[in-house]
Amino acid sequence: MNANIQASFPRVPAEQVKAALTELAATFGNRLVTSQAVRDQHCNTLSWTASQAPDGVVYPQTVEDVSAAVRICVRHGVPVIPFGTGTSFEGHTNAPAGGISIDTSMMKAIVSVHPEDLDVTVEAGVTRKELNEHLRDMGLFFPIDPGADASLGGMASTRASGTNAVRYGTMRENVLALEVVTASGEVIHTGRRARKSSAGYDLTRLFVGAEGTLGIITKVTLKLHGIPQAISGGLCPFPSVEAACQATILTIQSGIPVARIELLDAMQVRACNLYSKLSLPETPMLFVEFHGTEAGVREQSEFFGEIATECGGGPFEWTTKAEERTRLWQARHDAYWAAIALRPGAQGISTDVCVPISRLAECVAATQEDIAASGLVATIVGHVGDGNFHVLPLVDMDDPEEVARGKAFVGRLVERALAMEGTCTGEHGVGQMKMKYLEAEHGAEGLALMRALKKALDPQNIMNPGKIVAL
Amino acid sequence: MNANIQASFPRVPAEQVKAALTELAATFGNRLVTSQAVRDQHCNTLSWTASQAPDGVVYPQTVEDVSAAVRICVRHGVPVIPFGTGTSFEGHTNAPAGGISIDTSMMKAIVSVHPEDLDVTVEAGVTRKELNEHLRDMGLFFPIDPGADASLGGMASTRASGTNAVRYGTMRENVLALEVVTASGEVIHTGRRARKSSAGYDLTRLFVGAEGTLGIITKVTLKLHGIPQAISGGLCPFPSVEAACQATILTIQSGIPVARIELLDAMQVRACNLYSKLSLPETPMLFVEFHGTEAGVREQSEFFGEIATECGGGPFEWTTKAEERTRLWQARHDAYWAAIALRPGAQGISTDVCVPISRLAECVAATQEDIAASGLVATIVGHVGDGNFHVLPLVDMDDPEEVARGKAFVGRLVERALAMEGTCTGEHGVGQMKMKYLEAEHGAEGLALMRALKKALDPQNIMNPGKIVAL
Repeated sequence: MNANIQASFPRVPAEQVKAALTELAATFGNRLVTSQAVRDQHCNTLSWTASQAPDGVVYPQTVEDVSAAVRICVRHGVPVIPFGTGTSFEGHTNAPAGGISIDTSMMKAIVSVHPEDLDVTVEAGVTRKELNEHLRDMGLFFPIDPGADASLGGMASTRASGTNAVRYGTMRENVLALEVVTASGEVIHTGRRARKSSAGYDLTRLFVGAEGTLGIITKVTLKLHGIPQAISGGLCPFPSVEAACQATILTIQSGIPVARIELLDAMQVRACNLYSKLSLPETPMLFVEFHGTEAGVREQSEFFGEIATECGGGPFEWTTKAEERTRLWQARHDAYWAAIALRPGAQGISTDVCVPISRLAECVAATQEDIAASGLVATIVGHVGDGNFHVLPLVDMDDPEEVARGKAFVGRLVERALAMEGTCTGEHGVGQMKMKYLEAEHGAEGLALMRALKKALDPQNIMNPGKIVAL
Repeated sequence: MNANIQASFPRVPAEQVKAALTELAATFGNRLVTSQAVRDQHCNTLSWTASQAPDGVVYPQTVEDVSAAVRICVRHGVPVIPFGTGTSFEGHTNAPAGGISIDTSMMKAIVSVHPEDLDVTVEAGVTRKELNEHLRDMGLFFPIDPGADASLGGMASTRASGTNAVRYGTMRENVLALEVVTASGEVIHTGRRARKSSAGYDLTRLFVGAEGTLGIITKVTLKLHGIPQAISGGLCPFPSVEAACQATILTIQSGIPVARIELLDAMQVRACNLYSKLSLPETPMLFVEFHGTEAGVREQSEFFGEIATECGGGPFEWTTKAEERTRLWQARHDAYWAAIALRPGAQGISTDVCVPISRLAECVAATQEDIAASGLVATIVGHVGDGNFHVLPLVDMDDPEEVARGKAFVGRLVERALAMEGTCTGEHGVGQMKMKYLEAEHGAEGLALMRALKKALDPQNIMNPGKIVAL
């Protein structure tokens, strides 16, 4: 385990970069940008790792453009770093060796929608909100919601999930097929529009979550869902995190197809009261949503209310009216900004882990104790149906001691999750910042196997180098 | 595309095999078997490809045994072929180069059940029925049902699915983690018990569906589900395959969480009437099942009945009573044996394809026409919610002309599915028999990428060689 991989990563020689930039300029004209301001927007901006700007940014309009850019970079041994909306947290878009950022924001075509098959093919730069806007009139939606309005190529690349993964799955389950530009600039198509297949290795799942280290995703074919006839939602206070987790476990076990079940800890509820001018009891809170028929969501809501009461929580306040639901869920929707506002001037360092839900209460409680013992300010928000939760330490980045304390806290959080048979990240991905935990999670043999895959598919190590296995 | 790969596959030199057998005998004693009878049981028995027996069969009891057997075979360059229950159709268990069959039938431990987390870890040799027997008293079940009582290691290896994949997904979605013995005899663990993870490449999905060509699965951690409070089920006649498919599409689009939706074509219904002494109308028929609360399954059944009527079908005869459901579903349960009985002495050659459901009616109708034009006897049964269907030509294996006609028919079936953006196999896998279609499905570049993966993980080409990409 080398915690300094990032710092020690060798930069590509300047003459190689220069030669690549010259060729890229000839091919892309003003769709190659090398201004410092634009380069600075195309690297890590949301977390505590240093920003490492690329040497230039290319804006492809087609898969052929991406292929051309990759082929030029290959010829000169220059890294390529795919860029969607830049909303990832773990340094995914940094260029530790220098290189060219491939910004997919001009690749916005919604290529085809098949309402009868409930699928859609989009170019990588389409964001989830843009897609849902396009689908609304057809009575369809794409459920994966990681919070940010991320690009669908980026969401596939980081194996994103979010609030309603508990019902609809993550990008792992919702990507049917991909178009990918490989490390040699070839264009491949993984998967078909058929719902399932046993025809060979699962190339689609190999690229989903590979964070651009094996190839660049240029098109994504996604499963869609019909907009539910009825939605009910509401919130429910609990005397403790344990009680809220127990209610979650019973809900899942009972087979209630809950669409969203989100935990806010007491500190986060306090932050929301301050930020959104609410007067919620400052105690752990579950925000819950059900999708189905009118009768179905009523039945499910009532059943959940009974479970909550059984676990010492309640009352469960819920409604099927859209405006009312929005009001009840406001604290959840504002959670990130409310937490940030708790400590003006500090940087919010969002991190996540995921554990089996039987261990969730224990993991959250131990983490809260750790926050208190560390003297940090941090809130906890969890996609608890999946055992996934976020901690948001608010750190004064000008205080090196506090930064070090924050980093040590994240290290303990990961160790705690791994000790409970969990994972170092449920949805944020590895990027640069969680690389040092992969050996503990997968074992030396598992990590060696990942390295063998990377070497087989990217022998020159130019696809987003310095991330995940960092050859 | 080389249709003769199988025939031209070079055998491992006899002295290498002999040396490996000597070492295996020393390690495994009477758990190495080399009798012709046992070897003949450990190769293809269910399809029209020639049987190619292994040189010996090892019965490991532990993962260490599997690792020891693989290391011995590696030293002597002798192939290893994993074997579960031998119920696969595509020649997966054949030993075209010779080698050692690794029979997991003594690896029957149910290692751990976590009811709160809805997961279980089993050794590879546990069958799905054995698992469900073990789980019943806990109110839990494992839904994937490919028909045969296959081993869970084999089901993971072939990415199996079956009747209720439409609701619960396939092995792709239901395997959380694996223990695998690699081509060098190392033991790796892919995945954790957390429900989701973004921590690096998806090694689990790489081995699921790899048919033992990248490593041998020794343990499987699976998602479980609560036994539904209520189940309703029944059957519904339709005037045409088109009408039945249209009802299926509307059902899925409406978001009705149908647990099973199975099509039998008129020929299959006739076979069931003969075999099971029923008097069903000999017309296309949907067999449907819903899982949920009492109120939920009633609502869903009624809604489906309305859709069926709208599509010109019906009446939908359904019930929530277990015995009644079994009676209504009898034709579906007996379908395979009923079809086989249509032509005594003939061999049933089960094959499958999967297409987007909007193309399903067209694909089934064209296939029925092709059956008639080819002068074959063949029935069609489909997991139509997924666009997946089986064709079972009944072939006189002593008539080479008829065998050739049958094979040509399967070739056209695959071409038809691929032309409709489908796949050459939805659930049976590639084995030896669908290798020749992979280039048409994945393109030369996609297939080359699969080969690169195989070379990276199995450089000596000893893991079930001659299957999928057949280096």
